[in-house]
Amino acid sequence: MNEFYQKDIISIKDFNQEQLEKIFASTNKIISLNPSNRREICQGKTLGYLFYEPSTRTRLSFDAAMASIGGNSLGISDISSSSTQKGESLADTVEIMSIYSDVLVLRHTLDGSSRFAAEVSDKPVINAGSGTEEHPTQAIQDLFTIKKEKKKIDGLKIGIVGDLKYGRTVYSLLYGLGNYDVAVHLISPESLRIRSDSVYEIKKRLDFTESTNIEEYIDELDVLYVTRIQKERFPDEEEYLKVKGSYIVGLDLLKKMKDDCTIMHPLPRIDEISPEVDKTKNAKYFKQAEYGKYTRASLLGLTLNENGF
Amino acid sequence: MNEFYQKDIISIKDFNQEQLEKIFASTNKIISLNPSNRREICQGKTLGYLFYEPSTRTRLSFDAAMASIGGNSLGISDISSSSTQKGESLADTVEIMSIYSDVLVLRHTLDGSSRFAAEVSDKPVINAGSGTEEHPTQAIQDLFTIKKEKKKIDGLKIGIVGDLKYGRTVYSLLYGLGNYDVAVHLISPESLRIRSDSVYEIKKRLDFTESTNIEEYIDELDVLYVTRIQKERFPDEEEYLKVKGSYIVGLDLLKKMKDDCTIMHPLPRIDEISPEVDKTKNAKYFKQAEYGKYTRASLLGLTLNENGF
Amino acid sequence: MNEFYQKDIISIKDFNQEQLEKIFASTNKIISLNPSNRREICQGKTLGYLFYEPSTRTRLSFDAAMASIGGNSLGISDISSSSTQKGESLADTVEIMSIYSDVLVLRHTLDGSSRFAAEVSDKPVINAGSGTEEHPTQAIQDLFTIKKEKKKIDGLKIGIVGDLKYGRTVYSLLYGLGNYDVAVHLISPESLRIRSDSVYEIKKRLDFTESTNIEEYIDELDVLYVTRIQKERFPDEEEYLKVKGSYIVGLDLLKKMKDDCTIMHPLPRIDEISPEVDKTKNAKYFKQAEYGKYTRASLLGLTLNENGF
Repeated sequence: MNEFYQKDIISIKDFNQEQLEKIFASTNKIISLNPSNRREICQGKTLGYLFYEPSTRTRLSFDAAMASIGGNSLGISDISSSSTQKGESLADTVEIMSIYSDVLVLRHTLDGSSRFAAEVSDKPVINAGSGTEEHPTQAIQDLFTIKKEKKKIDGLKIGIVGDLKYGRTVYSLLYGLGNYDVAVHLISPESLRIRSDSVYEIKKRLDFTESTNIEEYIDELDVLYVTRIQKERFPDEEEYLKVKGSYIVGLDLLKKMKDDCTIMHPLPRIDEISPEVDKTKNAKYFKQAEYGKYTRASLLGLTLNENGF
Repeated sequence: MNEFYQKDIISIKDFNQEQLEKIFASTNKIISLNPSNRREICQGKTLGYLFYEPSTRTRLSFDAAMASIGGNSLGISDISSSSTQKGESLADTVEIMSIYSDVLVLRHTLDGSSRFAAEVSDKPVINAGSGTEEHPTQAIQDLFTIKKEKKKIDGLKIGIVGDLKYGRTVYSLLYGLGNYDVAVHLISPESLRIRSDSVYEIKKRLDFTESTNIEEYIDELDVLYVTRIQKERFPDEEEYLKVKGSYIVGLDLLKKMKDDCTIMHPLPRIDEISPEVDKTKNAKYFKQAEYGKYTRASLLGLTLNENGF
Repeated sequence: MNEFYQKDIISIKDFNQEQLEKIFASTNKIISLNPSNRREICQGKTLGYLFYEPSTRTRLSFDAAMASIGGNSLGISDISSSSTQKGESLADTVEIMSIYSDVLVLRHTLDGSSRFAAEVSDKPVINAGSGTEEHPTQAIQDLFTIKKEKKKIDGLKIGIVGDLKYGRTVYSLLYGLGNYDVAVHLISPESLRIRSDSVYEIKKRLDFTESTNIEEYIDELDVLYVTRIQKERFPDEEEYLKVKGSYIVGLDLLKKMKDDCTIMHPLPRIDEISPEVDKTKNAKYFKQAEYGKYTRASLLGLTLNENGF
């Protein structure tokens, strides 16, 4: 029996390196299968999604993943605009959705929502993003991308740049990287530094430096992970424009990087990375999106097949 | 040939006891089939839905039902917000949707809309709720739940509590129960009594008492069917709060009931039933939702297979 | 290898008569197949749709077409209301959607958008309507309908009535008809004549007359193609009502037509054609919608199967 069978995927903190490597191996298997064999993995199974916070991107990634392994998806893509759900408790909505599906995919604004849903549901629950820190499938997608592109994770120097305060992606990635021996450089404007209440827990897992200057370690990085800086986070626009400009990854910055530095981005991108970078061999953010489909397919396949696939 | 093949499902009044029992038998067969055999029932068939009144719950129940028997669903989940449909007649929309699908599922605010659609469409039409009284698939789901949980319907004492004036669910259930020998107790605030223009027709089919006091027959009931009382129905909030409080089904009320009284609710529930009741053996509202998936799958399977399944 | 394999479908101008006839033959084959053989054509393939301009009708036609040949569909039905896409470039959205699907269906307000998407995407792109002139799958559907109903296209007299200025359907149909030897009569109010900047290019392809009087050639027409006149196009309502009334196709006008004149309409119809016409043997607009499903299924099947089907 595979250890992920019927298990919830709630937090990246619940995964150790051995488990992550098993998921990576399954993902590689999915990639290597031909489409018709791939579709046997979840033939006729149903994914039910509940998005309390709309995220077209994440929803489509799960939908495409499930379709690629032969299953189908149904659910509610934006509960806030769903008239009939008004006033119904999360517990009731989860319970009903469990009846309609074999696996539940939940997106919610609140920390702890997925763990709560998993207690209510008798079907496995996959957290598709919750609260301030958790987005485990994104972290697994990101770790897989690093492993796939660099052939290893241990020993790498990884820069993470942009808004490190808001956005659960960065926190989940850091907790995931905690399973490996990496050096992390965090680069952000002063006001968008990683939250101080998370620093303690992250420090227990990995070493990182903090800086406001993207050029400080740029020539040492094996991976540069870029995130979006949102205008809404700044009290005045002038400050925003100044900050934004100083972190744009373009061909100029690329010249200062190691020749084989891998550039990643969780997408959507606005203008943090110039389009001319897309064609370079360093740009791996679309590959990363593709791997997101396959890692999710792998997680769904492991969750729904007693003996794996 | 099965008698439901290519037939419309418009009104619960069109079904006699023998027909209902046939549907129940098919539903039990669906429940007993393993998933891969189940999926052969409507393999590759397409359900087309047209919701002129949004109802996420009912739509997902049909979608999940169709998926469980191997078919797929497409359609319009909220026509009022569908820009391109503006000004198009119901007849034209139905005609087009008939081209796109093997069976049509229609939800509409107007009485008679489904019968009209059935005349236009050359594909079978299933009424997913229309006007003030008709919700035949909900009634079949409710009757099946009673039969499944109590092993019979004849001879039961059934209480129906809450808003009996608005909400087509109660009317359809009453018409459906008219096929059986049951004693019905209707419990509601004075202002939410069953509509006087329906009383005459219901009286022809079954005997019922009316009361404002939920405790009056509570110790005799075999089934308590709870419905939601909506704030919007009351002229002032104080009146609403008073009424609402007096009908809440909690552990206290449960103690006064027969030990094996079955508690049902069409869902969504707000606070008509306290969450602590959920864990009791009496609570069957989530089972009822599950049976809803299977009764709908059964109806779809019968409608689309000449020789049944 | 079939010549449409992995090819984009961007403009009706890219198709010559021989290619159109091949598509018609494939469409006839799809119509003749039994449903279970039909579903093998795109078994397990995924269509990804991106609608920058909502069009429920066109989206459902593609969805139903893909379902009929065994594939499934996912995507974004109204990007303007999709919160997460804000600010993302068309190129990035197309690139991601290409990862999620085997063929991309794009609807966009801008001319050239589909050609641009096709350059970005490594999956074939089908234009589901763009800019002022292009709606190639609608044109193919319309040409197939004419061929199917009249057994030929060459030699026909075809009237096109209504709003000829706005609405890409008419332009695409005219470019498509340019492959055949037809006489076209354009009938519209003065203010809704075909755009003068398109006249030159259309003139190179076929001969047409222009008129404001629907009765002028009515007794000669083999096909009457009716389009909607939208109120919003007129500066004052009185003018609109006068015009609208003069173009309504009813039984009176039908009496003046050739006995076997075929009446078409891209739908949705408001009141350009009276409902009593629907039952006459001349009314083919619902057949046209049905052929739309099959022509799209044919295009998808050709695009996704190296050796055709």
